[in-house]
Amino acid sequence: MNGSQKEHRTVNLDIHKDLFGANEEAAALNKKKFKEFGLTVIDIMGSVGTGKTQLIEALCERIRGKHRILMVAGDLATTIDADRVGSHEIDTVQINTGTACHLDARMIRVALTDVDLSKYDVVFIENVGNLICPAGYPLGADKKIVVVSVTEGPYMVRKHPLTIKMADIIVINKIDLAEVLEFNIDALVRDIREVDADLPIFQVSSKTGLGIDKLSSALGF
Amino acid sequence: MNGSQKEHRTVNLDIHKDLFGANEEAAALNKKKFKEFGLTVIDIMGSVGTGKTQLIEALCERIRGKHRILMVAGDLATTIDADRVGSHEIDTVQINTGTACHLDARMIRVALTDVDLSKYDVVFIENVGNLICPAGYPLGADKKIVVVSVTEGPYMVRKHPLTIKMADIIVINKIDLAEVLEFNIDALVRDIREVDADLPIFQVSSKTGLGIDKLSSALGF
Repeated sequence: MNGSQKEHRTVNLDIHKDLFGANEEAAALNKKKFKEFGLTVIDIMGSVGTGKTQLIEALCERIRGKHRILMVAGDLATTIDADRVGSHEIDTVQINTGTACHLDARMIRVALTDVDLSKYDVVFIENVGNLICPAGYPLGADKKIVVVSVTEGPYMVRKHPLTIKMADIIVINKIDLAEVLEFNIDALVRDIREVDADLPIFQVSSKTGLGIDKLSSALGF
Repeated sequence: MNGSQKEHRTVNLDIHKDLFGANEEAAALNKKKFKEFGLTVIDIMGSVGTGKTQLIEALCERIRGKHRILMVAGDLATTIDADRVGSHEIDTVQINTGTACHLDARMIRVALTDVDLSKYDVVFIENVGNLICPAGYPLGADKKIVVVSVTEGPYMVRKHPLTIKMADIIVINKIDLAEVLEFNIDALVRDIREVDADLPIFQVSSKTGLGIDKLSSALGF
């Protein structure tokens, strides 16, 4: 795909809140559509600064030879994250939510209306940076990854059990910084295990690449 | 106040969303009540892990000899933050919001209904850890502090201009970690200045105490 014209869209939506029921319906429609196109869709959630974009960049570099990728970025106001992923010659769709604190399934549907999904195999959706609100709004993705990082302090799992519960995979990011931040990763893993004993947990550094291969394989790439 | 019986309340609220208008009204009532009791009320906002609790602990230690303090903690599910501040022999009121991503003025009103406010001079309200949603719900506080920290990555200000705009004071926390995280504080200050050229900015380390005296004085303590 190198050298072809890349697409970087921006969709401005002012949908502030969706009813949970309406969101579930829209998510089911999205799921159906993604299946029709044979897409693998990954919804990536986490607080601001947890390294979601860098994780997507690392995964893109790992799998771009094998898979055609679209990145959908949710952000209140900027295109910073989409620009970063776009700089890797990956197609992007930017959803600017205004004041809305999460993406919802209708936003995804609207944003993808004019996108030719047959051009892609994998869609990474980077949700709005927020560890609370996105948990209530499934998008129709195949897998929901929650990214926590060693920079967020020791309590983020215990404070957000519902977000952890709805995840399919937990990524503990920035493990290269654990030592300088005196962060106890084992204690964090124990906190996650208390919420869900069987949840797959991957310890990675998106910056150094540590653990990215293992995560990528687990995602089926 | 040392040695007296400390109060640690927990109020469980299931108010998920308030209308903005109703919130403004409740905030005005709170403001009036705070004024009647001669209280200085500080609403402290910021993402999870940004060090809001540690900042409150540092301020409490700095001013406890001069002022009688109440701490109100907003959290989805736990009492971790209130317990930490409570361990300093400070009275606390815990508000557990369930799934709500912010405190609102009605929650504060309900939570303080049975509290004898004449016992206090200063109220620190620690909002739910979230850089987006609390911005839309003023509580009636005298000052709104937004805490950002060097662990949240370089884009948190540019991504949340509305939150920065409604702040009265910005605290850049954890500056002791800036060097090991290779974080550019000057660039962050420039980002804040782009949103609001006159916003007071305090660089502190709640952990080491650096900058706390200056912030405390600016708050009138």
